[in-house]
Amino acid sequence: MPRFKLTIEYDGNPFRGWQRQDNGPSVQETLENAVFALTGENSLVQGAGRTDSGVHALAQVAHVDISKEFPADTVRDALNHHVRPHPVSVLAVEAVDENFHARFSATGRAYLYRILNRRAPPALDEGRVWWQAMPLDAQTMHAGAQELIGHHDFTSFRASECQAKSPEKTLDRLEVSLAGDEIHIIAEARSFLHHQVRNFVGTLQLVGSGKWRPTDVAKALKARDRSAGGPTAPAQGLYLTRVDYAEE
Amino acid sequence: MPRFKLTIEYDGNPFRGWQRQDNGPSVQETLENAVFALTGENSLVQGAGRTDSGVHALAQVAHVDISKEFPADTVRDALNHHVRPHPVSVLAVEAVDENFHARFSATGRAYLYRILNRRAPPALDEGRVWWQAMPLDAQTMHAGAQELIGHHDFTSFRASECQAKSPEKTLDRLEVSLAGDEIHIIAEARSFLHHQVRNFVGTLQLVGSGKWRPTDVAKALKARDRSAGGPTAPAQGLYLTRVDYAEE
Repeated sequence: MPRFKLTIEYDGNPFRGWQRQDNGPSVQETLENAVFALTGENSLVQGAGRTDSGVHALAQVAHVDISKEFPADTVRDALNHHVRPHPVSVLAVEAVDENFHARFSATGRAYLYRILNRRAPPALDEGRVWWQAMPLDAQTMHAGAQELIGHHDFTSFRASECQAKSPEKTLDRLEVSLAGDEIHIIAEARSFLHHQVRNFVGTLQLVGSGKWRPTDVAKALKARDRSAGGPTAPAQGLYLTRVDYAEE
Repeated sequence: MPRFKLTIEYDGNPFRGWQRQDNGPSVQETLENAVFALTGENSLVQGAGRTDSGVHALAQVAHVDISKEFPADTVRDALNHHVRPHPVSVLAVEAVDENFHARFSATGRAYLYRILNRRAPPALDEGRVWWQAMPLDAQTMHAGAQELIGHHDFTSFRASECQAKSPEKTLDRLEVSLAGDEIHIIAEARSFLHHQVRNFVGTLQLVGSGKWRPTDVAKALKARDRSAGGPTAPAQGLYLTRVDYAEE
């Protein structure tokens, strides 16, 4: 059965998250309904990562098996037709080997977190950024972020409902930079714990506002205790920006 | 009576445009209601330009007279409080001389037009860009745009309902460039005719798609006839990005 790799953009605001839920719309369900409209068959759309309610994607990756031999571009255009009016867009579709698995073949994930750091609230980017009216110091936030790089037990930044077997992960990159009146935080790792990026951002906000010193981030990490970490930053500033695969 | 200069960001989608209308919400009315909530007085909020229904602003400028001597930052924060939940944000407020007039003192206006040029429709930027699925050639669009620079009779690119006394304007800049999967068109002039930028963009789209040659733009200009110009591009891709004043 032909397998297709989908690259997907979505606005997380109207969804309960990526994963199919009983209590509200999900991106997965929206795509599975679109596949059904195209093929008349129920198919699982398997995503690389389960983004939370309100989290956006610039390039989520998923795979789906379709019994008919459609050209990849036909699948893309048909899915984009059928997902309307939901804010989901299939950017690219390619036929892949049956060994390709969106989740298990992934070798890396990248996220962007956008903080709008100005006195005035967002008008055009409401629901797309975390608004922080008080000035944050991006440079000390970056210094604090560097304390987290490497292989660690990230219990202090892990949601209580996290289903991962181990709290140990390797963080490859956590970069804080200024972009106009925004602060951008880029996080890269093979995989992340539940809420890990949002808990990093909530912690770095404490550093940026001067409540914590950068070295306090290392202390929180070493505590291996969720209550030692900072609060969870809101979902609407977070974007899944890339999923890497070895073949590429 | 103290006069304040306001710099304003807004999402044009829910509004009938800048100007107060009987038949629906406007940005001007939203701001005038916020001023009333602060002062208890009816005040005119005079904008630099009347953006159309659906057109956005990153930095519209307006002035308002308020009888009380509020600190400028208090006016900004109070207006931002009172405009909620409308997607309008007052970025900056400064006390100005009573000779300052947002519209008549302006020496230049700048607009950005965003075309999303990819096969897949927008998910995150729905209502913020003009989606064009067919590939457009930004380079030939730029060449066509240069035919419009300078002092001309712009009747071919002027809406029939335009209220300007003369169709003659001086276009200082019309630049087309690639920005990822978007084409950005930047337009700068002392002032613009009604629909002028959107009519430029609709015309340049014909060039980008290969239907027109760049030199056909000069022919359309010389015709001084609206039916010789291209169609009007949709409002949702247009942003008022800057208003210039001599004092600054």
